[in-house]
Amino acid sequence: MHTNARSADAGRAPGAAGLVSETSLPHVVILGGGFAGLSAARELERAPVRVTLIDRANHHVFQPLLYQVATAGLAPSDISVPIRWRLRNQANATVLLADVTHINPAAQRVTLDGGAGELGYDYLIVATGARHAYFGHDAWEAHAPGLKSIEDAFEMRQRFLMAFELAEKSDDEAERAALMTFVIVGAGPTGVELAGALAEIVKGALRRDFRRIDTRRARVLLVEAGARILPSFPEKLSAIAQRDLEKLGVEVRLGVPVTNIADSVVTIGNDAIRAGGIFWAAGNAASPLGALLGAPMDRSGRVRVAPDLSVPLHPNVFVVGDLCTVARPDGSPVPAVAPTANQTGAHAGRMIARVVTGRPREPFVYFHKGDLATIGRHKAVAAFGRVTITGYVSWLLWVFVHLMYLVGFRNRAAVFFQWAYAYLTYQRGVRLITSTSRRT
Amino acid sequence: MHTNARSADAGRAPGAAGLVSETSLPHVVILGGGFAGLSAARELERAPVRVTLIDRANHHVFQPLLYQVATAGLAPSDISVPIRWRLRNQANATVLLADVTHINPAAQRVTLDGGAGELGYDYLIVATGARHAYFGHDAWEAHAPGLKSIEDAFEMRQRFLMAFELAEKSDDEAERAALMTFVIVGAGPTGVELAGALAEIVKGALRRDFRRIDTRRARVLLVEAGARILPSFPEKLSAIAQRDLEKLGVEVRLGVPVTNIADSVVTIGNDAIRAGGIFWAAGNAASPLGALLGAPMDRSGRVRVAPDLSVPLHPNVFVVGDLCTVARPDGSPVPAVAPTANQTGAHAGRMIARVVTGRPREPFVYFHKGDLATIGRHKAVAAFGRVTITGYVSWLLWVFVHLMYLVGFRNRAAVFFQWAYAYLTYQRGVRLITSTSRRT
Repeated sequence: MHTNARSADAGRAPGAAGLVSETSLPHVVILGGGFAGLSAARELERAPVRVTLIDRANHHVFQPLLYQVATAGLAPSDISVPIRWRLRNQANATVLLADVTHINPAAQRVTLDGGAGELGYDYLIVATGARHAYFGHDAWEAHAPGLKSIEDAFEMRQRFLMAFELAEKSDDEAERAALMTFVIVGAGPTGVELAGALAEIVKGALRRDFRRIDTRRARVLLVEAGARILPSFPEKLSAIAQRDLEKLGVEVRLGVPVTNIADSVVTIGNDAIRAGGIFWAAGNAASPLGALLGAPMDRSGRVRVAPDLSVPLHPNVFVVGDLCTVARPDGSPVPAVAPTANQTGAHAGRMIARVVTGRPREPFVYFHKGDLATIGRHKAVAAFGRVTITGYVSWLLWVFVHLMYLVGFRNRAAVFFQWAYAYLTYQRGVRLITSTSRRT
Repeated sequence: MHTNARSADAGRAPGAAGLVSETSLPHVVILGGGFAGLSAARELERAPVRVTLIDRANHHVFQPLLYQVATAGLAPSDISVPIRWRLRNQANATVLLADVTHINPAAQRVTLDGGAGELGYDYLIVATGARHAYFGHDAWEAHAPGLKSIEDAFEMRQRFLMAFELAEKSDDEAERAALMTFVIVGAGPTGVELAGALAEIVKGALRRDFRRIDTRRARVLLVEAGARILPSFPEKLSAIAQRDLEKLGVEVRLGVPVTNIADSVVTIGNDAIRAGGIFWAAGNAASPLGALLGAPMDRSGRVRVAPDLSVPLHPNVFVVGDLCTVARPDGSPVPAVAPTANQTGAHAGRMIARVVTGRPREPFVYFHKGDLATIGRHKAVAAFGRVTITGYVSWLLWVFVHLMYLVGFRNRAAVFFQWAYAYLTYQRGVRLITSTSRRT
């Protein structure tokens, strides 16, 4: 195959030379080891291809539970596995720890580590996802970290734990009150789950540990510019979730935009609030790699893909996960959630497996698994089509679903153990402040 | 009490004002939340005193298992607990997260955070321990990290995991061999346990995860300037431990000093060895705070304390744990191990409890619990007076003892779970490379 000559002269590339010398099968490069990238790789296990998965991190993160690492309930290792461990039994897959800085779809090459190497491909799956975005206010990020990576979770955990340490040291009542105020911007599932977890910790796990402050007096504000929390959920559930949050002591502020974020001060409308921690759960911006594919994009940088998830100008390039935007039959966009990432990633892998074996492509069909969010230790809201579930039952469902989707027995068992411990003791197991995270 | 006037005017101090306003009991300040500091605090639970424990970290670390965090076997949270959580039920104890930068024993005050605050005391217990030392070659530290804190363990873990990632990317056979060479300097218990763990991981947990390198070909060198490994153990056990290490594939080099350490190159005698990881387990230097007490010190900076562990010139100041040096009846120094820290810390606390209730001081009497070190997954060596145990039985003993001494049920259960998992699956659960640790 001539396409392989192209891969072959990628000898400069870390990984490439070895790969090509091994075999002459078509080379599938997957960028990103999240849900989408891993699903794509797994789907290609039995296909006559060589797979190279590249990620800048060595681990896959179970993002839906990141907020529990940020709130000291789980250890980072509980919700992450080494990507190469996940693929250790897939003989046709190689994993490279590298930062992909450029894509040249015409030459069918990707650039690694800012020019340190290049890698040729016959098929490319771009699954580099999204980062949190600040609607053009990049300066806000330093004061209001978001929650996409383990490092982000370290940073949040350290900020909210440090706020109480500083409050315990302070002799100024007003300063203490400010330090013990936490503002979460954005009331999607992440913001809601974060707010619920924080509200519980201050009343439970931390309560008896301090001598000079009463952590139960800490304030947790959930700020949403829209008209209701969990906007992607049925309205009924938004109302129930809000009621449950308020029962936990969370102050929910709707319909007011955040107008400014400075060091320890967030301005909501005209109301400037001093806070010990400001956490961002509002906006996402797609990975910049999407812009290199010459494809149409939506305003948040997601790539508008063809029905088979490939890119109009480059049928051998697929974009999946949070980096692509797909329309439902009714025209509404498919939500950017874990099941979507799994489904789009698997579809792209399947399409490549079909093409290399001479079978036709198929359009991607999204299956909506439902919406699910938890509020504290007993409550959750769930929607499956017309069916909605709330309260204790949906909370049990949330626990079951998240354990079920966790990768690897060890993590499942570890998380179950930590949850059982936290549930029975009201304690949080992972209250570490490390100077590594201080530096983050 | 007039001593309290002294504390009282520490109003500038974070923590001090509040403390003094609460009560007029004698104020005991403990510096350090390691084994010694925590034992001292626990001992004072029922004494008529106010206790303030200050540590620069918010967590107590179970140092004997740090090497397992460094080798990706345990999560940092498995071997650490928040200090204030440990003392949450001790009503007379307050915990401050602060860095003590100066002690003025004449004025009975300590300086916090480089002058940010001051704290007065009636009694002081200094338990700030030791850091690893490089025998005057401070430049070596950047190239050969030691293992005292969670941050140190992050750094080691990241270096040895990254070495294999780089080897997998490299096309240069010599470079790969160098990257897959690990040198551990110092063959005390830490060095021996580190070497054994590394030798096992490269043959077990990592074996199937890479495509282009064979991790079983990694070299693990244990370098000791002395005549035998585990010098503090009976000679017989040193020989057995060395044999067990060599069975695991560890190359033991005795009687050769390390003459230089540069970036990825360690020189042993005249033999320069390129390495993917160089780890320091050789020397300790006591905390600099010891030098502020006007007391005699040994050459590694440990304070020579009076028989009751107080400082000759300041009977209200006690020095405990790795920061003090105590002589056995036979004149030999008490070893700097966890039991010594627990015993000296508890003794200092007990002495203060006696003094404030008008009872006489007593000399510290060291009880030697024995020596114990593990070599890999089945072997260990133990010595109790004349009795020595080796092999599987002593390994079970090692497991039991370490679980028993772990603080808090949760950690015990978590560690037991991780060990059972690792033992049954040969996997390592915590193979995270986070850019936080990359930056450390």
